Amino acid sequence: MNNVQRIEPRSGVAFGLRKGEILRVIDPLGGQVSDMLAFAEVDTRECLSNGRTFDYEETIRLTTGNRLWSNRSNPMLEIVEDSSGSHDFLLTPCSEATFRHFYPDKPVHRGCFGNLAEALAPFGIAADAIPVAFNIFMNVPVDAEGNLRVLPPATQAGDFIRMRALDDLVIGLTACSAYDSCGGSFKPIDYAVEAGR
Amino acid sequence: MNNVQRIEPRSGVAFGLRKGEILRVIDPLGGQVSDMLAFAEVDTRECLSNGRTFDYEETIRLTTGNRLWSNRSNPMLEIVEDSSGSHDFLLTPCSEATFRHFYPDKPVHRGCFGNLAEALAPFGIAADAIPVAFNIFMNVPVDAEGNLRVLPPATQAGDFIRMRALDDLVIGLTACSAYDSCGGSFKPIDYAVEAGR
Repeated sequence: MNNVQRIEPRSGVAFGLRKGEILRVIDPLGGQVSDMLAFAEVDTRECLSNGRTFDYEETIRLTTGNRLWSNRSNPMLEIVEDSSGSHDFLLTPCSEATFRHFYPDKPVHRGCFGNLAEALAPFGIAADAIPVAFNIFMNVPVDAEGNLRVLPPATQAGDFIRMRALDDLVIGLTACSAYDSCGGSFKPIDYAVEAGR
Repeated sequence: MNNVQRIEPRSGVAFGLRKGEILRVIDPLGGQVSDMLAFAEVDTRECLSNGRTFDYEETIRLTTGNRLWSNRSNPMLEIVEDSSGSHDFLLTPCSEATFRHFYPDKPVHRGCFGNLAEALAPFGIAADAIPVAFNIFMNVPVDAEGNLRVLPPATQAGDFIRMRALDDLVIGLTACSAYDSCGGSFKPIDYAVEAGR
């Protein structure tokens, strides 16, 4: 792979992705989560919506062939390849508040939420406008009663997902900062943008 | 019950709810859904978040004792009584786009989304700011593979839910307009605001 960029542990980035380009997100060491957001570049009030995605895809388990939809009912990204098959679209990015709630004895970190807010600010996107992220590689089983757990990701080193942009997008992407979602380790995430065909 | 208000079939309302007051939402005939939104009155950029709620309540099945949380990690409403125990917080309000997608042979309706957008506009809340609603009485089973279905509500006439406001709120509330969520019928929804104690 050319052009692979590294997101250092507990940090985040934002960048433009052109319609037709493919975003590859890689777990280089295994066992790490990457929170992804997407906004329409032409009007960033249009953004990923877990609810619209669950509506149209009729599943909460998204993998190859599924599309991620916006709050305006437009498909934003299509998953074209997925070596892990395990992602979450239920939970919000970790934040100072979630650190205080879930890890009261550990240092507070601004988390993926704070990292995304800083990375997206230059694009005019406010923290309050950050929706539920598509949490790549995150392992959140839901039992028959609806109870959920956050388990360490099942990914192996090199697992990846590839998603085709269906519009010109602003992408936010992190290497997750929380203890539970990455099994207590803090690891990097790699990504690359492949030309569309 | 005094002060019971009726939401006519396929319509919606918005109103203020003071901290401590209890909102009772009633299915007067049985088999109907009511989409509910909540915004902080002091700053309507703070709104209900299904993701933050799933984070803190650790379940997607919300009933008595559960709280509904905001995008700023504040609890907005607490469910204090619930005769049905069946609600959905995964799916977005029905809209013109969802009517075209799911009911291509039927007349398009603006749906709960359009009804909420009109009702909330006087409060300065834009359509793009409408998040996933808490879909009272909606029956959305999720199977072990994550696939979801929209079934007719299991409610009987008179079933209700009571929720205590934990902040001064702007509430949006509908009698659902979609075919699937209410079993093909369009019925009213009743509601009442009870004084806090």
